[in-house]
Amino acid sequence: MSGSARSVTSVDNTDGRFVIALTLAYNGALFHGFATQRRTLSTVQDRIEAALATRLSRKVEVVCAGRTDAGVHARGQVVSFNASESERPNASLLRSLNGLLDPGVVVLEARSARRGFSARFDAMTREYRYRIVDGPIPPLALSDFAWHVRKNLDVEAMREAAALLVVEHDFKSFCRSSSAEGRGTVRRVDSIDIVHRVELGEAYIEVRVVGNAFLHNMVRTMVGTLYEVGAGRRDPEYIRGVLALRLRDSAGQTAPAKGLTFWHVDYPEDVWL
Amino acid sequence: MSGSARSVTSVDNTDGRFVIALTLAYNGALFHGFATQRRTLSTVQDRIEAALATRLSRKVEVVCAGRTDAGVHARGQVVSFNASESERPNASLLRSLNGLLDPGVVVLEARSARRGFSARFDAMTREYRYRIVDGPIPPLALSDFAWHVRKNLDVEAMREAAALLVVEHDFKSFCRSSSAEGRGTVRRVDSIDIVHRVELGEAYIEVRVVGNAFLHNMVRTMVGTLYEVGAGRRDPEYIRGVLALRLRDSAGQTAPAKGLTFWHVDYPEDVWL
Repeated sequence: MSGSARSVTSVDNTDGRFVIALTLAYNGALFHGFATQRRTLSTVQDRIEAALATRLSRKVEVVCAGRTDAGVHARGQVVSFNASESERPNASLLRSLNGLLDPGVVVLEARSARRGFSARFDAMTREYRYRIVDGPIPPLALSDFAWHVRKNLDVEAMREAAALLVVEHDFKSFCRSSSAEGRGTVRRVDSIDIVHRVELGEAYIEVRVVGNAFLHNMVRTMVGTLYEVGAGRRDPEYIRGVLALRLRDSAGQTAPAKGLTFWHVDYPEDVWL
Repeated sequence: MSGSARSVTSVDNTDGRFVIALTLAYNGALFHGFATQRRTLSTVQDRIEAALATRLSRKVEVVCAGRTDAGVHARGQVVSFNASESERPNASLLRSLNGLLDPGVVVLEARSARRGFSARFDAMTREYRYRIVDGPIPPLALSDFAWHVRKNLDVEAMREAAALLVVEHDFKSFCRSSSAEGRGTVRRVDSIDIVHRVELGEAYIEVRVVGNAFLHNMVRTMVGTLYEVGAGRRDPEYIRGVLALRLRDSAGQTAPAKGLTFWHVDYPEDVWL
């Protein structure tokens, strides 16, 4: 294909008239995170960009709503890229991308957005869900999608603690310290709901966190800290001290990646064409 | 341990006073079916009997409520074995068995049943559930636990067809032909419910079949036959002909093992101690 008009080295054959937004689900266990790293490690971004390059016969670089670490799953990740008029999404795009992608990544939806749309910068709220299976019986169908803790957790105490994390706070204690330097650590958490659920016959506790944006490891550290309260090692009031100290070591552990799913992103309605 | 009083070669140190019944869940993808076959193939029965042998320091042979083929999952399989008074189940039995078992098999419950109880012969009804993800988007978290069919299925037509399979029929057409020779093929199906569900964020169709006992491959062949109706290739009335013909070839395909889960077994209340 070298030298041909459809060479994959050409990036500039889009007229920038609109943007394609893809909603993705993936099994984080199968990838080294979302973002492209070294060529030898398989990432979700690599897989989706390769499928797009094959389908559109050009190089494509996507922007995502939120980078996910190795092991973290997605149900509603959104990626965007500039597209030309001839590339307008249709049913065939969805079908062919799903045919080209490895098992482990699925395109759920392809939409057209207005010129200049960015999956990252236009996001209004992001929702993450974290599953915990508590008690002596390990998860089976959920084993790749939940954190198993042997103690039965006090969900009421966890809810009390979670209420102290809602609205705007400086979340420096909940952030991987190296990544917060020189950047603001104030974030707005709109809600944290903690619910009992049963799926595939297995009971679990789900922590649902909605906010505008999140620091690196913030949700997993929140869950690790709420776990301290649920396991009875700390009172709910402990959260106030953690927030005030602005020290990562004051918070609980970073809960394992496999329990976390990037669930949903909300955009203003007027971005869609 | 050879020659010791706790040698695993001794089978007869139970006084037969009572029976232990274990409820098991397993991921069928990881085993060559339930029943012990050749030593080189890993089966659920091998794993559970090995764990019991280690825990009870004797050889144990279990009876199961229903053999499952390679790839078929269980949420409520029940196995039973004779036990001595000193082996009465307690929380420690459950914990230690789950510690000894491979990932992929979990003991959900351990109960004491009266003398002579058999997980197989005392079962009143058995329930199987079959998951189908229909449409162009493949399942992700459910990929090991559902059959993916690209056509959108007409669930209303499938319900009409399923109603014709309920109550007592000769199910010879739904049975792997080799295994039905010389044995009766009349079975009682109490109910078939077909419902839309969403679990782990993924939509699917679930076929729930309850009956007293099932022929080999009967549920999977029922699902493969209902699929013919759901996909619009056959009218619901086609089921009448399939039943009447008593020929395996008149029915649909055997639906894939991975969609099937042995869900629940009902026993009379008075068997439990």
